Parts: sequence; C-alpha cells; structure tokens
Amino acid sequence: MGRHRERARADRAELHAVLDAGLVCHLGLIRDGAPVVLPTGYGRIGDTVYVHGSTGARYLRESLGGTPTCLTVTHLDGVVYARSVFAHSMNYRSAVVHGILHAVTDPDEQLAALRAIVEHLSPGSWDHARPPTGRELAATLVLALDLDEASVKIRTGPPLDDDADVAAGRAWAGVLPVRTVFGDPQPCPRLPAGTPVPEHVRAR
Amino acid sequence: MGRHRERARADRAELHAVLDAGLVCHLGLIRDGAPVVLPTGYGRIGDTVYVHGSTGARYLRESLGGTPTCLTVTHLDGVVYARSVFAHSMNYRSAVVHGILHAVTDPDEQLAALRAIVEHLSPGSWDHARPPTGRELAATLVLALDLDEASVKIRTGPPLDDDADVAAGRAWAGVLPVRTVFGDPQPCPRLPAGTPVPEHVRAR
Repeated sequence: MGRHRERARADRAELHAVLDAGLVCHLGLIRDGAPVVLPTGYGRIGDTVYVHGSTGARYLRESLGGTPTCLTVTHLDGVVYARSVFAHSMNYRSAVVHGILHAVTDPDEQLAALRAIVEHLSPGSWDHARPPTGRELAATLVLALDLDEASVKIRTGPPLDDDADVAAGRAWAGVLPVRTVFGDPQPCPRLPAGTPVPEHVRAR
Repeated sequence: MGRHRERARADRAELHAVLDAGLVCHLGLIRDGAPVVLPTGYGRIGDTVYVHGSTGARYLRESLGGTPTCLTVTHLDGVVYARSVFAHSMNYRSAVVHGILHAVTDPDEQLAALRAIVEHLSPGSWDHARPPTGRELAATLVLALDLDEASVKIRTGPPLDDDADVAAGRAWAGVLPVRTVFGDPQPCPRLPAGTPVPEHVRAR
C-alpha cells in the first residue's frame, strides 16, 4: 500500500472526516527502544485527539513525559484486482498523526474528552448511561494529541495496469468494495426480557 | 480497550487465525527517534509474516538493519454498550508481533512471499493475473518478520457492569456486532463490456 495514485492531502476537513469515520485507531509508542502498536478507541474535539486507559496501564504512563507518538486511523475501502499481480492494490483512507501525548489534568477537559471518546464509539451513550463517578474518573487516564502534524492518504478508483496488460486482456480487473457494517443489537443477558433497544443503538 | 475480560492467548493456532482473518496490518517503525505507524498489506507462511513495498520507499529501507518493529492486526467485532459510560468497551481480536524486519534476498522466498501477500489480499489472483516480471521483482522489497514474539488479545461477550448498575436498570446494555463485508465487484472501466466476473472474485 502506498505506491500508486496516492496524494498527501493537507486539507483539515478531510483529516477530520477520516478520523471521525473510524472506531479504532492504532497508537504507536516506543517502549524499551522498540515500537509498540496498540489498538484503542479515541475521540476528537476540534484539533485534538483523545485516547484513554486505566491509570494502571504501564504503556500509557510510560508514553507521557514527552515521548513521541504516532496515531493512525485506516479505512479499507476496496480490494483492487489488476491484470498483473504487481498492480494489485487497496483502496483506502488513512490519517497519520505525529506528536507528543499530554496527560489531561483539567477536570473539565477530562470529562469533555471522555464524553468525546464515548460518543465517538457509541453516539448517544453519554446521556443514556450512568455518568462516571469521581472514583471512576480518578482511575481513568486521558491523553491528548494535537493534530498539528498530521497527514491523510487516500487511494480510490480502478487498478492502474500497464497499457500492454490492458491490451492483453487476459485477467479480470476491478474493485471489490469493502465496508464495515453493524449487525443486529444483542441485548445483555442480564437485561430484563422485553427491554426495548433504544433509538441511538437501533438506528445505527 | 485493554482493561476488561482480556487474556493473552499464547496459542499459535489462534495467532495464525487472527492474522489470517485480516487484510490490513499496522506496521510500527522508528524513524528519527519517533514511532511511525503505517497501514499495509501482508501475508503469512508458517511462522513468518511478510510485507512488501517499493525499493524506493524510504521507510522500508530504513527499517532494515536490525531496527525493531511491531506489526499489529486488529478486528473490531462489536461495540459494547454498558449501563455506565465507564464500562463501555469494544469486542475485538488483535495480534501484536514484535521483532526485527529482515529483507528477503532469496529469489524463491521472495516469490513465495509475494504470492502469500497477493493471495492474502485477493485469493485466486496469483494464478489468474499476469505473474511479476524480473523488473517488477527487482523493484519490490520484501520483508520478513518472525512470529517468535507475538501475542493475541481477545474480548468477547456482554458488558461487565457493576451489580448496582444492573440492579438500577436505567440503561440498555448489550453488544452491537461490527463486521467487514464485501460489496458488489466494480469492473475496471477499461475492461471490455460483458467481461464475466471470475469465480474467485464473485464468490468472495
């Protein structure tokens, strides 16, 4: 991935759109001199991305104090079948953010960030579910990453075969779209029978 | 992600299964002292994962020569709605592989690795499409990563709410399944009209 018909798009709205369309990011940290790439949820407010975790999570604590970080969100949009195996590719959108993770210490910002993270994963949940207690907030580490240094790459469209391969016409070529979908809600077994699925879950 | 009902599963078959079920991995490298996380395709043969790129790709060339790497594959399986915002979570499977990237220099291994990468992305394409030429192979850098140091994390099941929240019964709780699906094949505009979609694409 990364060689054909790509362009780095600096457009801020496009960056926000790619970030907002994802559910999981991959966070890259350095631990003991080696990169560690972990999946995690996230949220965005303006030009700041937030992630969170337990205050007991060693990898998060270690990533504070000025360690550089990379946060990447990728959407696979299609498998690109070409006339040559060499020209096979993927259609995708990805956002790559570089920066320093900062711990959020202001209580108002922490609460706003957690709301953004929860609402990103499950829109409507913040007002529907029980709010966090002081003890829960104290156990939650919230980290912020500025979008100052970020790039977007997008590949779209059909395969880019050589003219000779197109003329030869020996293989099928095209795109098999890939997308992420939601299934039917599965109620928790501890939920009373007949509890209706709320609109913010059902409509998704 | 990462706090609740997780267990590190050392089982090799499970590791293979998580890797094989993915299409995109996130590759973590260190460049100029900072982590870089990039999405890319991959393939697996036994206990080796292969990635590839252009020999002109600086990030791949720089990752050779003993630099530690992390390769992560994540499947999001569900959004976990809980009675409290704090217990919201995701169901997922992830494989995290640590190691050193080695350039593949043996021509037979290079060809086998490229076949594995192409067949992973698009099963059936290697025999259907035109094979790589010597020039194309020379322009392709193939990198190998051993699965010696790898872990799998899996979260499944309903939310883990406190008993008090379950008893309060104020919010819906359950799992909204998430899955990746393929759409209808979109033929390349340069394909002659009426070209049938081959079985290996149609059946997917």
